[in-house]
Amino acid sequence: MFADRLIKSIKKKGNPSVMGLDPRPGLIPQFLRDSFGGDLCQAVFEFNKALIDAVADLVPAVKLQIAFYEALGLEGLRAYHRTAHYARERGLLVIGDVKRGDISSTAEAYRDAHFHGYFQCDAVTLNPFLGYDSIEPFLKSCIEGGKGVFILVKTSNPSSGELQNLKVGDEYLFQYLGRKVADWGRDLIGEYGYSSVGAVVGATFPGELEDLRNIMPHTPLLVPGYGAQGAGGTAVANAFDDNGLGAVVNSSRALMGAYKLAEKPEYITAQQLKRYTRDEVLRMRDDITGAIKNRGMDIREKF
Amino acid sequence: MFADRLIKSIKKKGNPSVMGLDPRPGLIPQFLRDSFGGDLCQAVFEFNKALIDAVADLVPAVKLQIAFYEALGLEGLRAYHRTAHYARERGLLVIGDVKRGDISSTAEAYRDAHFHGYFQCDAVTLNPFLGYDSIEPFLKSCIEGGKGVFILVKTSNPSSGELQNLKVGDEYLFQYLGRKVADWGRDLIGEYGYSSVGAVVGATFPGELEDLRNIMPHTPLLVPGYGAQGAGGTAVANAFDDNGLGAVVNSSRALMGAYKLAEKPEYITAQQLKRYTRDEVLRMRDDITGAIKNRGMDIREKF
Repeated sequence: MFADRLIKSIKKKGNPSVMGLDPRPGLIPQFLRDSFGGDLCQAVFEFNKALIDAVADLVPAVKLQIAFYEALGLEGLRAYHRTAHYARERGLLVIGDVKRGDISSTAEAYRDAHFHGYFQCDAVTLNPFLGYDSIEPFLKSCIEGGKGVFILVKTSNPSSGELQNLKVGDEYLFQYLGRKVADWGRDLIGEYGYSSVGAVVGATFPGELEDLRNIMPHTPLLVPGYGAQGAGGTAVANAFDDNGLGAVVNSSRALMGAYKLAEKPEYITAQQLKRYTRDEVLRMRDDITGAIKNRGMDIREKF
Repeated sequence: MFADRLIKSIKKKGNPSVMGLDPRPGLIPQFLRDSFGGDLCQAVFEFNKALIDAVADLVPAVKLQIAFYEALGLEGLRAYHRTAHYARERGLLVIGDVKRGDISSTAEAYRDAHFHGYFQCDAVTLNPFLGYDSIEPFLKSCIEGGKGVFILVKTSNPSSGELQNLKVGDEYLFQYLGRKVADWGRDLIGEYGYSSVGAVVGATFPGELEDLRNIMPHTPLLVPGYGAQGAGGTAVANAFDDNGLGAVVNSSRALMGAYKLAEKPEYITAQQLKRYTRDEVLRMRDDITGAIKNRGMDIREKF
């Protein structure tokens, strides 16, 4: 079951941080550009591989934002596939941040593509705008194939409230949706009390995050918005339960671009890339686990 | 401007029908499977090419549902690219049914992929769940690059009401969203009074369709749900304005599988495939334009 695999890995590494691998071309270090000449997609894969090698012992999972691979065409999507495969080889769970959502027969095609086909991931993000029949085909693979989903409930972007914070009856849309998602995941709860049907809830709205943690006590949260988007450890602490579990926090730009803290980032070496990335992952881990501890919780002590 | 190109093409062909190219493997005729041996993706492209050749003089546009290509991996996506390219060569507009939706910097990557990169289309479908900043990057390409978007407002699937028909204040969510989409497209209205910012509104909910036609008088509607999903000409007539314009109606399965009406579809020839597809497109055209005429409108007479 996906939820149990995720939580076991979080506990083993003592870290709820997920490394986002979103290859914006401007992030690729010069030494990789030099080594792979004009082959941007090979450089993307080698960059991802170097980042995975740097922190595979420190993080439970990676998240791949497929848009940045689609923007590079077929070779970009080959780099996505190779990255997902390599991450799994290194013992990491792979979350495909694809935010797909379509009518049921089309959702089946997306499910086949992203769970069982070329883009194979352990879990994917989904958009709930079309309702349950757009989600259901994926749940089948959660039950039978050990896969997981994270359904958008409250996203991290500035205009997320336009729809998500509409008042429906006496609650907000994100609350209504939170209850739905909790319900959809009811039959997929594993040994730690968490479902393989998770939710995406941005760190940039700490009030909503705290609220949704309460509304969906068995739903693991995938929390974007930490780091480059502005949220810190205190903001994301709301995502965790009293045992320090129940969430993973993603950071992409701040980890992939950590080496830019170097005095001369254009001359960075492979060895230095690794060190800067590890340092930033450790800083993020300590920031989040520290904030959790301040609230009286601890991932490592309690388990 | 996309809206004008679309309407000119509809008027020229006297037909608001769009052919959906959703290559479910079960639809590919046997003679194409035989010709291209084990190469399913080549067979998909040749099937699409044959369908385009069959009706290029009869329809203004094709719509490609990318999920069915993603399910076939990289070679499937190559077939998507080749199909889009070939359709444009034959003078058809190409709508990428991708339903993407993500935070702004990610939306830029999707825009680059689907408007200007390998998956280049004239227009794409978008999911509005994340609000305006997920849409805005695409609007830039509508203004500067002559592209178009169709934003999901009321989808054709059975559970679409779960979110879309929630009551927000004294209106339904789809109505609220309809007003938003109309507003987002206000600066992109062309010579026929229609915007390059369109909306997806399913034919399976004729009441909502009529309502949204009134709420968004300058918004072209992309109407799925005709044919295999159950809606007929009378249901979709509500999508059109008093001049018989303002909408395109998509059919995928009923057109791609029209040849299955043959007595022995497994022995169908290229020539017969063409005839069955044309016949079904003509039937659909006459069904829709007939229903429009019954409401006192006519695409061809008025223009």
